[in-house]
Amino acid sequence: MKEIQAIVFRSGRLRLLDQRKLPAVETYVECRGARSTARAIAAMVVRGAPAIGVAAAYGLALESRRFRTGRAVVDFDAAARLLLASRPTAVNIRWAVERLRPVLEKADRDARAASIPRLLAAEASRILAEDVMVNREIGRRGAALLRRRGAVLTHCNAGALATAGYGTALGVIRAAWEQGRRFEVYATETRPYLQGARLTSWELTRMGIPVTLITDSTAGHLFQSRKVAAVVVGTDRTAANGDVANKIG
Amino acid sequence: MKEIQAIVFRSGRLRLLDQRKLPAVETYVECRGARSTARAIAAMVVRGAPAIGVAAAYGLALESRRFRTGRAVVDFDAAARLLLASRPTAVNIRWAVERLRPVLEKADRDARAASIPRLLAAEASRILAEDVMVNREIGRRGAALLRRRGAVLTHCNAGALATAGYGTALGVIRAAWEQGRRFEVYATETRPYLQGARLTSWELTRMGIPVTLITDSTAGHLFQSRKVAAVVVGTDRTAANGDVANKIG
Repeated sequence: MKEIQAIVFRSGRLRLLDQRKLPAVETYVECRGARSTARAIAAMVVRGAPAIGVAAAYGLALESRRFRTGRAVVDFDAAARLLLASRPTAVNIRWAVERLRPVLEKADRDARAASIPRLLAAEASRILAEDVMVNREIGRRGAALLRRRGAVLTHCNAGALATAGYGTALGVIRAAWEQGRRFEVYATETRPYLQGARLTSWELTRMGIPVTLITDSTAGHLFQSRKVAAVVVGTDRTAANGDVANKIG
Repeated sequence: MKEIQAIVFRSGRLRLLDQRKLPAVETYVECRGARSTARAIAAMVVRGAPAIGVAAAYGLALESRRFRTGRAVVDFDAAARLLLASRPTAVNIRWAVERLRPVLEKADRDARAASIPRLLAAEASRILAEDVMVNREIGRRGAALLRRRGAVLTHCNAGALATAGYGTALGVIRAAWEQGRRFEVYATETRPYLQGARLTSWELTRMGIPVTLITDSTAGHLFQSRKVAAVVVGTDRTAANGDVANKIG
């Protein structure tokens, strides 16, 4: 199976898999700086908090080629504001900004302005690599919880598409599958944006994991008829008491 | 407000409001006999059991112009089979056939073959008029139950579009509104076919009744937060014990 890559950064070019067109068409949108990356985020070309964070980091790295000498921090902050406004709910954009800003400040202080784009891109790639690593660890630990026989239900999309790769909720399902466990997955279509119907079903099908797409309200019926052994979802917000919020669908 | 007419029979022509195109476009499909009416039913041009029954009755009346002398009953049964197969779940098609067949048999016995199309069309119009009358009575009685303050929730579409006119579930809401009661309506979008989003919201808006369109799963949240005082839905099937079935959505 070819690994799903929602974000590709190569030879100084950022390409984002256009998730609005999946599953019908696999095509990439190229971003050349902070403005086009912010536009891609706002337009839902890329979605899922971790994926958005990585895309924003690369967008800042690209933008830094245009930073004025001696005004790099001011220009960085302007570009960061643009990206932060593109999806106010995605905390990962703020994380990306907070990771890149010290790198920029240090390079600026050391009068290494020429190497800023390279340094920021390297930091963005570290964020990406760490996210994949974290996802694999989430998958490993989560898979251990999928011990009961029976189907697994997931809502929305917290897969490779929503992250830098591998996936969080889908990472758990994938890790369990890779360990040889066999089960059926129910994916809710996730109204109104249909992330489950368009993205999760597509990812699972690509991985060869049997998936049944259901309308959101069918989840209640499956619970009532005891057909679901486990539910794995991403968390849009986690409360201090451990409660997890995701969209109603 | 102009009355919504899903089924128009005038000057020997049957026209069905194309419900697949609502709410974007209001256009009618013309049917010329049993075959085209069955096709319109199968294609969801017309839907809702009472509306389908009335459309089938007119389709049979139109078809009867082609019945062979002395073979009218045989030809009627063939046309009826075509219509019955177009939507096996709509019991109203069977009712329509059972209402029209004795009319045909009597006319055939009396050797009044020439007047069969007119007699069948008249019977179809009686079915239509009775359905509107029944709907108004359902509305009158149902409205008396909407006494509690608070919002009303409805699922799918059991409005003027689904019937010969006025509506069953929406008829109750409409009757209460016409009696001067004021409330808000929540309409579930009703996946996967979106009858609530496309039809119910459109009908309520045309009637000037405030409606909020919700995703199906939002219903649970509204119940939990006690925002719904009453639920009015059509019944796809009613069990002997009074239980009512509608689609999950």
